Amino acid sequence: MSQIAFNPLVSGLSVPPVPAAQGWARNYDGAQGPLIDLSQAVPGYPPHPEILRLLGEAASSAAYAGYGPIEGEAALREAYARDVSEAYSATLPGANVLVTSGCNQAFVCAAMAVAGSGDAIALSNPRYFNHEGTLAMLGVAMRSVACDAKRAFLPDPAEIAAAFDAGANGVALVTPNNPTGAIYPPELLREIYDICHRKGRWLILDETYRDFLRSGVAPHDLFARPGWQDTLVQLYSFSKSFCIPGHRLGAIVAGEAVISRVAKIMDNLQICAPRAAQVAIARALPQLSEWRAANRLEIARRAAALEAAMRELPAWRVEAIGAYFAYVRHPGHDASSAAVAEALAKRAGIICLPGEYFGEGQGAFLRFAFANAGCERIAELPARLARLTL
Amino acid sequence: MSQIAFNPLVSGLSVPPVPAAQGWARNYDGAQGPLIDLSQAVPGYPPHPEILRLLGEAASSAAYAGYGPIEGEAALREAYARDVSEAYSATLPGANVLVTSGCNQAFVCAAMAVAGSGDAIALSNPRYFNHEGTLAMLGVAMRSVACDAKRAFLPDPAEIAAAFDAGANGVALVTPNNPTGAIYPPELLREIYDICHRKGRWLILDETYRDFLRSGVAPHDLFARPGWQDTLVQLYSFSKSFCIPGHRLGAIVAGEAVISRVAKIMDNLQICAPRAAQVAIARALPQLSEWRAANRLEIARRAAALEAAMRELPAWRVEAIGAYFAYVRHPGHDASSAAVAEALAKRAGIICLPGEYFGEGQGAFLRFAFANAGCERIAELPARLARLTL
Repeated sequence: MSQIAFNPLVSGLSVPPVPAAQGWARNYDGAQGPLIDLSQAVPGYPPHPEILRLLGEAASSAAYAGYGPIEGEAALREAYARDVSEAYSATLPGANVLVTSGCNQAFVCAAMAVAGSGDAIALSNPRYFNHEGTLAMLGVAMRSVACDAKRAFLPDPAEIAAAFDAGANGVALVTPNNPTGAIYPPELLREIYDICHRKGRWLILDETYRDFLRSGVAPHDLFARPGWQDTLVQLYSFSKSFCIPGHRLGAIVAGEAVISRVAKIMDNLQICAPRAAQVAIARALPQLSEWRAANRLEIARRAAALEAAMRELPAWRVEAIGAYFAYVRHPGHDASSAAVAEALAKRAGIICLPGEYFGEGQGAFLRFAFANAGCERIAELPARLARLTL
Repeated sequence: MSQIAFNPLVSGLSVPPVPAAQGWARNYDGAQGPLIDLSQAVPGYPPHPEILRLLGEAASSAAYAGYGPIEGEAALREAYARDVSEAYSATLPGANVLVTSGCNQAFVCAAMAVAGSGDAIALSNPRYFNHEGTLAMLGVAMRSVACDAKRAFLPDPAEIAAAFDAGANGVALVTPNNPTGAIYPPELLREIYDICHRKGRWLILDETYRDFLRSGVAPHDLFARPGWQDTLVQLYSFSKSFCIPGHRLGAIVAGEAVISRVAKIMDNLQICAPRAAQVAIARALPQLSEWRAANRLEIARRAAALEAAMRELPAWRVEAIGAYFAYVRHPGHDASSAAVAEALAKRAGIICLPGEYFGEGQGAFLRFAFANAGCERIAELPARLARLTL
């Protein structure tokens, strides 16, 4: 028998980071109290009862058991287009929306639409590891754009322009950022957009966490630009805002040339996103703006609680904090962030992700997904961290 | 502004075939009676009420709103491993099962695990178009293995061996076949498996329609082979057997080396398959064997009804018929199958897919997804087809 073949691009991927980090906690003895899981970005409160009712109603209906349209249920495309139009003071039709099975899939589809094996896309460093993994497994080269602490974790538009000049088909950015939490100011996004537009490259903007920005402030004004469809592809997740990551629902907002290509990809990938959750969220979207606003305030309280907690620990420093994540400098100067994160899980019962999972030169940092934990749990952090010797 | 870049591999994909065919029917005036939709493989009867109840129960539970394990819910992996073990007289653990969001995604994951851009995989001709589309968009070359009418639409193992010698990393086959319906005999599968095993290449076996084979007969005995994990990857869909395509649920059965690679792909692709449907089907699986058996009988009745109906039409010929599909030779010798299918939709109110959507040299055929239509609707076909001049 000859040697069996695997795809080296897949064999070479890292093991999925979140289960790896959660695995460390299996050795925690509980001595510091119950586990505080700050590893994965999941809302630490349940979905609204009305969402659960609507999900149950749609899932138990024979009407949604069959295949649906590839691009998504018309009702959700329309409802989400209205939601985006309101949030960004723009006027978008449902035809600009395609529903995916979560925002990771939205990224896969957007990346595939604009780049294939041998092409390149620019990502920030640090970056969301699944974006890097997706490019790697597709054979798309990654150009790295530094987002260092000294620049408040924001990209330098000149570096993005240089990545384009070196051949990248586009740049994918996450704002509010994962892992750092950094919120990209509208002026910076405008500057990056202008470079993309001028050079004919794509700006893929993952705005999974945009609902947790301060109310009444549009994240950017790019949807008001004439011809944005030729430059901008926006990604979104219903997971965080509606507390339903298990139902896998995301969306792409883009021009019709992108949407028609993504529909071809989606048809091959999985025909259509699961229908029942689409129908439920289409109904929930217009009803729950007060609940979403209350959640935004709760997450803001958690951010404040984390900042207050970390101020008690002079050796630790919150370097950036945003909608869902804080990027924290740990005191273990000689240790790698993975060793520190492992020690936190095993000895302090705190699960978080090491900075080095997010890119080169990130060993000094940890990502705290603080939105997962209530304020009283966050208040336990100083005592646990103070007791920990690294 | 420079020219914007798209991925030519995606731009070059055909438009999704099913919506294209369904689009033809918009011009049907109803003169021949209600539309008979034989285009897409969807069960023409509703899910069992207990499935709907379980789906509703799981979807409305906060317990399944969060992320689940990448590989799938343990309960479904175990339940499906037991189901496969029974059907194939084998003993498989849940660790050999990974749950995907439908069987198209199972194919994407399996293909990516074993082949990347520049590699090759062999497919039959005719073939399921989404398999071809997936390879094309990933930059994986397709080697074509003829499955002609004169060979009863079965592949010649020597041709598969030749494809391997020409560099293909594996062969992906569908049995019962889509589009032809041909059922690959266990001896043929054993012969192909032996070639794969000897040459160290993958046999990807899409058995989406296996529940509609005659009861009590195992589709093959390959899971009983020692070391099957190094050769065989089996794909399955819960969509047809449980009438829930809208919930997007499929599965891969493979060795742990494949499962661990597919888990990396799934994490990037969409973290995990939707959870509520997994939980519901894990509970439904052991309960509904009688209902599944009754459905198998109903589909067999529809197959018999189609054969009887087509015998009334000497100019038309059922060339192959299997679990879900019939491959029918149409009388429009000078017309392309797309023109015939379009005429059927517009003038006879019958939607089916043209053979040429499935590969080269298939212009003489149409695919009838007869499982979609009840026997009384199938009985209407002769009158409608006899009235049609091509």
